[in-house]
Amino acid sequence: MLAPFQIAYQTYGTLNEDRSNAVLICHALTGDQHVGNPHPVTGKPGWWLPILGPGKIIDTERYFVICSNVVGGCLGSTGPANINPATGKPYGIDLPIITIPDMVRAQAMLVDHLGIDQLFAVIGGSMGGMQVLEWASSYADRVFCAMPIATGARHSSQNIAFHEVGRQAVMADPDWCGGRYIEQGKKPKKGLAVARMAAHITYLSEPALHRKFGRNLQDRDNLTFGFDADFQIESYLRHQGMSFVDRFDANSYLYMTRAMDYFDLAADHGGRLADAFSGTKTRFCVVSFTSDWLFPTEESRNIVHALNAAGASVSFVEIETDRGHDAFLLEEPEFYGAMRGFINAAAKARGLTTI
Amino acid sequence: MLAPFQIAYQTYGTLNEDRSNAVLICHALTGDQHVGNPHPVTGKPGWWLPILGPGKIIDTERYFVICSNVVGGCLGSTGPANINPATGKPYGIDLPIITIPDMVRAQAMLVDHLGIDQLFAVIGGSMGGMQVLEWASSYADRVFCAMPIATGARHSSQNIAFHEVGRQAVMADPDWCGGRYIEQGKKPKKGLAVARMAAHITYLSEPALHRKFGRNLQDRDNLTFGFDADFQIESYLRHQGMSFVDRFDANSYLYMTRAMDYFDLAADHGGRLADAFSGTKTRFCVVSFTSDWLFPTEESRNIVHALNAAGASVSFVEIETDRGHDAFLLEEPEFYGAMRGFINAAAKARGLTTI
Repeated sequence: MLAPFQIAYQTYGTLNEDRSNAVLICHALTGDQHVGNPHPVTGKPGWWLPILGPGKIIDTERYFVICSNVVGGCLGSTGPANINPATGKPYGIDLPIITIPDMVRAQAMLVDHLGIDQLFAVIGGSMGGMQVLEWASSYADRVFCAMPIATGARHSSQNIAFHEVGRQAVMADPDWCGGRYIEQGKKPKKGLAVARMAAHITYLSEPALHRKFGRNLQDRDNLTFGFDADFQIESYLRHQGMSFVDRFDANSYLYMTRAMDYFDLAADHGGRLADAFSGTKTRFCVVSFTSDWLFPTEESRNIVHALNAAGASVSFVEIETDRGHDAFLLEEPEFYGAMRGFINAAAKARGLTTI
Repeated sequence: MLAPFQIAYQTYGTLNEDRSNAVLICHALTGDQHVGNPHPVTGKPGWWLPILGPGKIIDTERYFVICSNVVGGCLGSTGPANINPATGKPYGIDLPIITIPDMVRAQAMLVDHLGIDQLFAVIGGSMGGMQVLEWASSYADRVFCAMPIATGARHSSQNIAFHEVGRQAVMADPDWCGGRYIEQGKKPKKGLAVARMAAHITYLSEPALHRKFGRNLQDRDNLTFGFDADFQIESYLRHQGMSFVDRFDANSYLYMTRAMDYFDLAADHGGRLADAFSGTKTRFCVVSFTSDWLFPTEESRNIVHALNAAGASVSFVEIETDRGHDAFLLEEPEFYGAMRGFINAAAKARGLTTI
C-alpha cells in the first residue's frame, strides 16, 4: 500500500454548474499532465494541443478538462523518485508496483476531490487507453462516454518482450545502482537512452521510417565506415534516446512499463472480457490505426467484440495511416473527424449542447 | 586493407572429379561454419543439420559442401578479437569495417584455394542471403544456381534502427572499454545480452510469440509484482541474451550488424538493382516467409523484379508460416520441398544426376 501519495494535475476550462462537463484525459507511458500547456522541462507545447483549447475538438470553452500525472510517474505525482516517508530516502524500487487499476483509483480520488460525480468523457491513447478501459469497467456509472485509442485490453507477448528489453537496458547500466541512483548522485542515462531507442522503433511504422529516413546518410554520399551515426535514422534514434533521459526518471520508466505489461482486463474478470463491461451504459468509440503494430487493429476489435457482447453502445473507427502507433499524437484529419463527431454527439445526448 | 587474414571453414562430402558439385552455404549474422557438425562452444547440432547430410536435401553423398566463417566473425576467421600484427594486441574496433562484398571476396579466395572454378550452388538466409546476392552479382560466372532466403538487397531503415539499438547497448556497457575489453580482461556481457534480446524479438513473429508464450507466467497464477521475470517471454529472452554472450564476441557483433546495414546492392550498381545481375546465367530461387517482418516478402519481390528485368531464370516461393524470420532455420516442410525441387532440377541441368 502506498500512502500518503500526491497527484499532480492540470485543468483547462471551467466546471459547469451541474458538474457534468468534465473530460478526463489519460496520458500514455511517457506522457504527462501537460496536455494543453508547455512542458515544464522541455518547453515543448502541450502534447495534445491540436485538439485541446477554445473551439477545438475538446473545446475548453465548453468542457472542464482534467489531466493528471499517473501514480508512479515523475512529473509531480508520487513516484519512485519521491521521498519514502518511512526511510527519508527516495523510494527507488521500494515503491510498490503500480497497476493500471491503481492509476485509475488515484484519478477517481482526484475526481472525487474536484466534486465530480460523473465524467462526461474519459479519453486516452496507448497506456492512456488502458486507463480508459479500466475506468469504463470499474467506474461504469461515472463515465458517460469513453474513447480508448490505439490500445488493447491486455499487453501482448511481443509488447512485454519489448518492455523487458528496455527494463534490462536500464538495469544493465551500472549507474542504475540497483535502483538507488538518486542517493548516489547518478543517473542511468545510457541504459535509459537505449530503452527509449528500442521503444521508439515500435511507435513508428516501417513505411513511416522508410519515408522519413530510408537509407539517407547524415553526410550525403559519404559512409564513414565506422560506428558513428552514418544513417539519419541512427542519429535520429540517438537524439530520441538522449533527449528522453533529461525529462524522464529511469525507475518511473520501469514502473510504467510494468503497469502496462500487467494489464489484463479480461483476466481481472474471470477470463471473459465482455464481463468487464456487463450492464454498461457508457458510450464507446474505439479507435485504431492501420499501421500500428504495437497495438494492431486486432486488439481494438477484441475490445469492440467484448463491448458488443456486453450490449454496449459502441462505434469503431480504423484510421488508414502509415504513421504507426504514434499516429494518435499526430494530426490525422480522419481521426480528428471521428473524435469530433463522437464527442459532439455525446455532448448532445448529455444535454451539454443545443446543436 | 586487412592482410594477412585467416578463414576458418568446414567441408562435408567429396569434391567430384570435374569439381562441379560444390555447394557454398553462407551463414547469417550470428551463425558460423558449423552448419553440419556440433558447435565447438555450445555442443549444439549443426545449425542446418535437418537439410544437410547423406540423403538429405543438400546431400553430402552427392555434393561437396563448404561453409566458412565470415571475415570479421569470431569462430576462427580473422575478426576483431584476433591479434593485430601491427600492434601485437587484439584489433578491437581498429579492424577495418567489413562489408558483405568483403566477406564474399574472402570466400572466393577460399573457393580458389580449393581449386573450384564454378560453384554448383550458393545458398544462405538473412545475412547469408545478402552474400548469395553479392556472389551472384560479382561472380556471376562462378555460380550455377543461387538461393537467397529471407533476405533483401539492402537493409531497411527499420532494420538499421534495430541494429543501432543493439550497437548502442553494447557500447553503453562500461565493460566494452571503448572496444578494448579483451586487453582489460573484461566482457560487455550485459550490453551484448540486451542487444541480443532486442534482435531476437525481430526474428520471431507476434503470432509465434503469442502461441509459444502468450501471457503465460513463470509461476502459474502468481504475479510477483516486481521486476523479476514474471512472464515466460521475459525469462526466455533473458536466457537468449545470456547464452549468446558465451558464444559470441561483442565487437564481432558490431562489425556484422554494420556489414548488413551498409549492404545496398542497387546503390553499388548506379541505383538500379537489375544492373547488379545483367547478363546473368545463374538460376535463382528466391524464398520469403509470410510472417517475416525483418525481411518481408516485399524485399524478396524487389529482388525477383530485378532478376526478371535482368532476364534471369528465377523462381520465387513465399512460404506460409507464422514463425517469422527464424523460419529459414526451422523445419518448414513447404520450404524444404521448394529447396529440394530447385536443387534437384539444377543438379540435373548441371549434369550432376541422371534422374
